[in-house]
Amino acid sequence: MDPEILRTRNWTAIRELLDSMNVVDLADVLEQMEGPDAVRVFRMLPKDTAAEVFSYLSHDTQQVIVEAITDREVGGIIDELFLDDAVDFIEEMPANVVKRVLAAVPPEKRDMINHFLNYPEDSAGSIMTVEYVDLKRYFSVAEAFSYIRKHGVDKETIYTCYVIDASRKLLGTVSVRTLLLAREEELVGDIMDQNIISAKTTEDREALTNDFRKYGLLAMPVVDNEDRLVGIVTVDDALTVQEEEATEDFSIMAAISPSEEPYLKTSVFRLARNRVLWLSLLMLSATVTSAIINGFQDALAVMPGLIAFIPMLMGTGGNAGSQSSTLVIRGLALEEVSPADASRVLWKEIRVACLCGGVLVVINFVRMALMGYSLIVSLTVCLALLSAVVMAKSVGCLLPLGAKRLGLDPAVMASPGISTLVDAGTLLLYFGLAKALLGI
Amino acid sequence: MDPEILRTRNWTAIRELLDSMNVVDLADVLEQMEGPDAVRVFRMLPKDTAAEVFSYLSHDTQQVIVEAITDREVGGIIDELFLDDAVDFIEEMPANVVKRVLAAVPPEKRDMINHFLNYPEDSAGSIMTVEYVDLKRYFSVAEAFSYIRKHGVDKETIYTCYVIDASRKLLGTVSVRTLLLAREEELVGDIMDQNIISAKTTEDREALTNDFRKYGLLAMPVVDNEDRLVGIVTVDDALTVQEEEATEDFSIMAAISPSEEPYLKTSVFRLARNRVLWLSLLMLSATVTSAIINGFQDALAVMPGLIAFIPMLMGTGGNAGSQSSTLVIRGLALEEVSPADASRVLWKEIRVACLCGGVLVVINFVRMALMGYSLIVSLTVCLALLSAVVMAKSVGCLLPLGAKRLGLDPAVMASPGISTLVDAGTLLLYFGLAKALLGI
Repeated sequence: MDPEILRTRNWTAIRELLDSMNVVDLADVLEQMEGPDAVRVFRMLPKDTAAEVFSYLSHDTQQVIVEAITDREVGGIIDELFLDDAVDFIEEMPANVVKRVLAAVPPEKRDMINHFLNYPEDSAGSIMTVEYVDLKRYFSVAEAFSYIRKHGVDKETIYTCYVIDASRKLLGTVSVRTLLLAREEELVGDIMDQNIISAKTTEDREALTNDFRKYGLLAMPVVDNEDRLVGIVTVDDALTVQEEEATEDFSIMAAISPSEEPYLKTSVFRLARNRVLWLSLLMLSATVTSAIINGFQDALAVMPGLIAFIPMLMGTGGNAGSQSSTLVIRGLALEEVSPADASRVLWKEIRVACLCGGVLVVINFVRMALMGYSLIVSLTVCLALLSAVVMAKSVGCLLPLGAKRLGLDPAVMASPGISTLVDAGTLLLYFGLAKALLGI
Repeated sequence: MDPEILRTRNWTAIRELLDSMNVVDLADVLEQMEGPDAVRVFRMLPKDTAAEVFSYLSHDTQQVIVEAITDREVGGIIDELFLDDAVDFIEEMPANVVKRVLAAVPPEKRDMINHFLNYPEDSAGSIMTVEYVDLKRYFSVAEAFSYIRKHGVDKETIYTCYVIDASRKLLGTVSVRTLLLAREEELVGDIMDQNIISAKTTEDREALTNDFRKYGLLAMPVVDNEDRLVGIVTVDDALTVQEEEATEDFSIMAAISPSEEPYLKTSVFRLARNRVLWLSLLMLSATVTSAIINGFQDALAVMPGLIAFIPMLMGTGGNAGSQSSTLVIRGLALEEVSPADASRVLWKEIRVACLCGGVLVVINFVRMALMGYSLIVSLTVCLALLSAVVMAKSVGCLLPLGAKRLGLDPAVMASPGISTLVDAGTLLLYFGLAKALLGI
């Protein structure tokens, strides 16, 4: 949309443009408008478009609109929304808005929303929706198509249909592709795929996206403990969840409390709040390294040249450790590595550490020789370097695996989490070796 | 599949099981078998299943199979593969295998593969495929369905069909859903969606996945410079690309050369090779910090207590910087931030740095007071802390933005990339303040 038209506030021209626009782009336009203008344009939209546009708005804009329109309008929009979008919206609203919204929707929808709000955060249940097409095994292909034509309009997807029995137990899936390529008189029960890939309501939503990717699915059925179909997750949600989970891990691994808002839309205060806790904890944990250095103050006074290697050793240890932790954390997220692989991973990391450490030692030894350091000092620094890399890589791979086994988030054990341990370990190794080899 | 059956090598039982399995799980089973057994089982598969299973195998196993079967079999499999899978496979094979494979496929397919191999790595062209359904605008809905029934069997998706004119120019898209809900006599040209979201062949594949997520697409058409349809990308590939791009950024940001192989399947030697270059560079760059410390050796001899704060200051600076760089790099990848926002981002980061730095200063001041440090020493350390955080956050946000503007990968500018700069800057600030305030 030409931003010029927005500025002119020529409502007729705007309305004309709105009709030709993609709903996602329409939502973008609303995001860029002032609150009252956004509400005004939103009210120009036909009812079904309005609900769809609403589902693509940021939570802030959703709130502005809901607070400006009538209860009747609110009820209409929420009733038109897919259940997963309605639940997602309600989860993010303040209590007074939630109360008003729930009062405005029809009782049946309200019960369903309340039920879905109870699924644990980050579970398959929390992202599924109920607008799917269910078929019976005794339907013919022709009957299936007329059923889809009749009931498919409001469904989130029609391309995968779910075959259930009288007790809603999931028997199989059948794709519209299979239906299209089958003969009209064939029975759904005969052509359905009984090799069902499904998720339980309580399954982790990240594990679910791994299955979407692995099997190339367009939708996945979600079943309860009795294998009864309770909802579906569609691939567009899997794509979003996969992005959100990666962004969350990027944040946590950089010592930031994760936030779902885009960077530029997050306030300075909130950005600072998300970062200062970890910064403070890590700063305080550096008290340990300070104490270790102070403990060796006398030795350092004898050979002050040793101080200059502290940043290099701690830096290399930190980098070596975060290489290992990052690969293990990512492997855990993609389910390529599990805590059961701990000994295999550790043995691999120790060998990698020896190879990397060996190369670093050679480079460092040559450099120190060129700079005129004595053999024994070079040897001390090089040995500290090698042992720091081995220690850092061992800690770096074991901590995330241990966290996962204990049911904690492995990403917390990334670079910032292990840094205190690796820093302290590196210093103790360095000073210990210096004392032993240099006799200070 | 019961692993026990694999061990018994009871081929009849294995063949029976194979028939009932999902192709992805079948590929998993082959991966776990010894080479000769995998080839044997692979040859038991029906031709069309074989090609599908083949596309889900790792490149190592693909190579083992191709080297064990006849040219005729190779040609048959490659011809059955979707073009994107064929191209993907050939890209990863050594030259002698590529030569043999290309000689074995029909000339027409060979020309197409060679053409697709020329698209730049990481472009939309490099991941698209040609198995789509194209319709004419003058088709009725009934004609469209009979066309889909006739030509849809071998297509990667039939759910989005592409309406093209005689010169293959893309006029619009029409979904099977729209076709199903339309009347039989309506014309494709009247019901098609002309609001096309497409990509150019040269567009970055990561930008393309952002559009898939934003618009909730199942497939995206790829067009050339004259807007002629040349291929499509399907959502399963978008899901994979999104995962691979995130994994690549995780690796680069942890100072690892990215690799597409899963962790446990990568050899120790290769893991070490992917890590040692960055470790060496970062270790050598620590020469700068060593030189700075050596330059202040005399001052440190006067007040050796100052040494103990070096790790805390450098650590906090590094953490503060990587928080900023991580958020900016992620924002750039998701297209939420662009280099044009540089001044806005910098101003935001400076304010965040002042807020975070302020909190850290208070905590640190109290701690140093409790530990009995003098006011002037505490003041020196606190001022160094605050200025280090502001400096680190400024560098942390500007470097990735600058890299992006220069067409480089912003992820390289993450924590390890900025660490040398931030480390050196922190030390200079600390020693400079110490000289000025403590008169040493």
